[in-house]
Amino acid sequence: MADSTAKPQPQQPPKSAISPRRADDFPEWYQAVLAAADLAEHSEVRGCMVIKPWGYGIWENIQAQLDRMFKATGHKNAYFPLFIPLSYLEKEAEHVAGFAKECAVVTHHRLEAGPDGKLIPTGKLAEPLVVRPTSETIIGAAYAKWVQSYRDLPLLLNQWANVVRWEMRPRIFLRTTEFLWQEGHTAHETEPEAQAETRTMLDVYETFAREHLALPVLRGRKSASERFPGAVDTLCIEAMVQDCKAVQAGTSHFLGQNFAKASGIRYLSRAGQQEFAWTTSWGVSTRLIGTLIMAHADDDGLVLPPRVAPSQVVIIPVIPKEEMRDKVLGACRALAEQIKSAQFHGEPVRVEIDARDVTGGNKTWEWIKKGAPLRVEIGPRDLDAGTVFVGRRDKGPKEKQSYPQATFAAEVPALLQSIHDTIYARALAFRDANTRVIESKDEFYAWFTPKNEAKPEIHGGFALAHWNGSPEVEAKIKEDLKVTIRCIPFEDKPEPGTCIFTGEPSAQRVVFGKSY
Amino acid sequence: MADSTAKPQPQQPPKSAISPRRADDFPEWYQAVLAAADLAEHSEVRGCMVIKPWGYGIWENIQAQLDRMFKATGHKNAYFPLFIPLSYLEKEAEHVAGFAKECAVVTHHRLEAGPDGKLIPTGKLAEPLVVRPTSETIIGAAYAKWVQSYRDLPLLLNQWANVVRWEMRPRIFLRTTEFLWQEGHTAHETEPEAQAETRTMLDVYETFAREHLALPVLRGRKSASERFPGAVDTLCIEAMVQDCKAVQAGTSHFLGQNFAKASGIRYLSRAGQQEFAWTTSWGVSTRLIGTLIMAHADDDGLVLPPRVAPSQVVIIPVIPKEEMRDKVLGACRALAEQIKSAQFHGEPVRVEIDARDVTGGNKTWEWIKKGAPLRVEIGPRDLDAGTVFVGRRDKGPKEKQSYPQATFAAEVPALLQSIHDTIYARALAFRDANTRVIESKDEFYAWFTPKNEAKPEIHGGFALAHWNGSPEVEAKIKEDLKVTIRCIPFEDKPEPGTCIFTGEPSAQRVVFGKSY
Repeated sequence: MADSTAKPQPQQPPKSAISPRRADDFPEWYQAVLAAADLAEHSEVRGCMVIKPWGYGIWENIQAQLDRMFKATGHKNAYFPLFIPLSYLEKEAEHVAGFAKECAVVTHHRLEAGPDGKLIPTGKLAEPLVVRPTSETIIGAAYAKWVQSYRDLPLLLNQWANVVRWEMRPRIFLRTTEFLWQEGHTAHETEPEAQAETRTMLDVYETFAREHLALPVLRGRKSASERFPGAVDTLCIEAMVQDCKAVQAGTSHFLGQNFAKASGIRYLSRAGQQEFAWTTSWGVSTRLIGTLIMAHADDDGLVLPPRVAPSQVVIIPVIPKEEMRDKVLGACRALAEQIKSAQFHGEPVRVEIDARDVTGGNKTWEWIKKGAPLRVEIGPRDLDAGTVFVGRRDKGPKEKQSYPQATFAAEVPALLQSIHDTIYARALAFRDANTRVIESKDEFYAWFTPKNEAKPEIHGGFALAHWNGSPEVEAKIKEDLKVTIRCIPFEDKPEPGTCIFTGEPSAQRVVFGKSY
Repeated sequence: MADSTAKPQPQQPPKSAISPRRADDFPEWYQAVLAAADLAEHSEVRGCMVIKPWGYGIWENIQAQLDRMFKATGHKNAYFPLFIPLSYLEKEAEHVAGFAKECAVVTHHRLEAGPDGKLIPTGKLAEPLVVRPTSETIIGAAYAKWVQSYRDLPLLLNQWANVVRWEMRPRIFLRTTEFLWQEGHTAHETEPEAQAETRTMLDVYETFAREHLALPVLRGRKSASERFPGAVDTLCIEAMVQDCKAVQAGTSHFLGQNFAKASGIRYLSRAGQQEFAWTTSWGVSTRLIGTLIMAHADDDGLVLPPRVAPSQVVIIPVIPKEEMRDKVLGACRALAEQIKSAQFHGEPVRVEIDARDVTGGNKTWEWIKKGAPLRVEIGPRDLDAGTVFVGRRDKGPKEKQSYPQATFAAEVPALLQSIHDTIYARALAFRDANTRVIESKDEFYAWFTPKNEAKPEIHGGFALAHWNGSPEVEAKIKEDLKVTIRCIPFEDKPEPGTCIFTGEPSAQRVVFGKSY
């Protein structure tokens, strides 16, 4: 070993709470953030996760807030069976082909002791049941019964549910065998109405990502090879996370009449004709949680967008001597009541007091790692001075500011909004810094080639480049670089150009990236 | 055929919207109410139901309101896998024995085209997975990892989820293969703490049934033969519905150390010893919806308890001439805004305007059948007179009352509470009228023998009788009469007596009934 006294050591970067850091090993950093924030963990059931209370609390807020947006756009909730008869799934050929390799199949409906006394499945089903990977076909069967005339349209329903897609390489929140999601399913009288619905719901997702999750996302349509199996058109929102990869964070599908034909959703038109309905489906899932973690968390742990944080403000009592406990806790409770009565986006601010018997420093670090937007410390000195000591999660862990106790609660909504705005601006700046307009194939290949062989996940980011629309070109790029077209962005005036791969004409630039 | 002019016809009872009536065929009446109120229907998947928007809206309110009560008692939500490895389920012998006959089993994880081109399950799993019938074992596996010391206790979690218990004779909302529920799972340091939790959550259920669903329920414990498989003690709430049968509407189980031993939930005690935790579990399900229908609905359809009604007030515009449309609708919208700003139990009143192009009389009947608590009609004459015409669902369909438009909104909360109180009092009076203290075996058998062979579901109701505590006596009664002990009621001073079946001593009277 080298003599450490001989030369000055290279200066150490400041300590971080999460090891490894993002820059050193992004996948391991992600796992470490999940653990440090106590969000979720792998279960013993292959590919299935356990969502712990702090992680589930984020999902509850996502659910409640999105649900209000769905209802405001005229949708109601309903619930359809978990199981889909195999014959239903087979009705749409592309659809079943797309999901066949990842279906959990129920084949028996009881257990009985076998010859060796161990339980074995018995009661074999005449027709196997697939655990829903998505519900177009089972919901289509119901719609076919419910829709008779144009008066029954539009039918605008949503379902909050669990779905199962067998996953060989699970990653918590991003890709798990079972996940939680919502799936909207609508049926319309005309093609333009169904297309408008598809776009409306994509815009709801974009608004939600921006205003609730502080995520800037690109909006656009998928190329044919990336469409939902059975869809005519798939619209998507795409986020960039901190390893410069893309995450498809939500999709909205225009299904044309494909599923209406497969399920027999017919209606008597105004002209007295039997017509097939036009349908859509759209969904977001617990993947949104993975996306916000990868977009916002830092080397000290999770950074939560305030609107979905289970607790937006955490009050940490500082109790140096036991005899001060009652007084300090009393002040904490009084402050918590004041903060609760402040409103943030029309809801009472969510506040909790962490009165556990743990040293203050450890508590503070726990809440930093859990990403609580505001930490408020109150001790005897603050009581005397009439102040509180406040840490914002978007600033450094040591950067704290004193506020007057009397007026702090009233400032909380503005502070939360400021944290939201800061992390949104950061994510946007990151995406901008890692997006490049690319004019040649060589530049394109250089952009997506890892700079460091040991860290293949680090690469250029998004590329905006002209493409001739050919699936073969797309397939070659995917084979060479693992890069796909993330979306063909919506543009008011698309600028035509020349495909950088073939020299052929291109209608507009499209967004390329590596994706989760 | 008889000459209908010869004799006067027997007087017809007034027409009812639901056919058959409750008194004529209770099971068919129930199906007819479900259909008329558009609540839910059977799917093509055996035993699985589709919950339609009006039915799901009731569940959303049940969920939101119960969830607040769970959180107020210190619980948080989390989510655990849908699939349970067979070996987990086998860890608790009584438990697996109780559920083995109704387990949906996943045996394969993909589909591939077979020799004839049809899809067949492939990718056989090394260990079959059971679709959760309940989650004690899968949650126990997680708790075993999370609990190390007494400092980790109590662990107080709840899960909102779907569960599957294969059902040969499904009945919507009461008994379906898949149903929605919540399951609380808690772990404690001491036996008395776990017992207190078991009782606290039963009391939450009783309060919820009474104050939110207008259901009077009996509280007590189950006899050993009716316990949850693997529990030490099962507490329950039992409702009586209008065919005099009992519905077990919620259960809370004290599991002792049985599941902690099966799953290995151990903690380091304050005394420095490794100890097994004491656990509980408790749940209610979409069965609550079936219970409230059977308890409150009448021969005109559903009667909804106001707190869980998806719409508490429905405004029906009366538009005799097209040119009056804008004026009438404007008045409806203004009134709806006023009503929304009224508060009922701390929430804005839920109001909707039914502006569909359907005749007024049909609309009114639809809302009667759907059980909306208050119907408000506004037409041009009401606008001139400054009045609204109001129908209460707890009164006859023709019984309407006029209110001043200017003050009606302010009266809505009191009207809703009055409807709640009325239907609660009715259900209580019905139960009282159909509950009898019984002193002899003959009287008992007479009480439970149908008066009319053609209507075996009509019988006496609840019997309060002394029983010696013997499972054999219980089994004989069940065999003879299909009557079971619904609960051993909690009593401050239980009065001992003599078992009416054996003449042996009895500690207290227990409640007998036929059940769903």
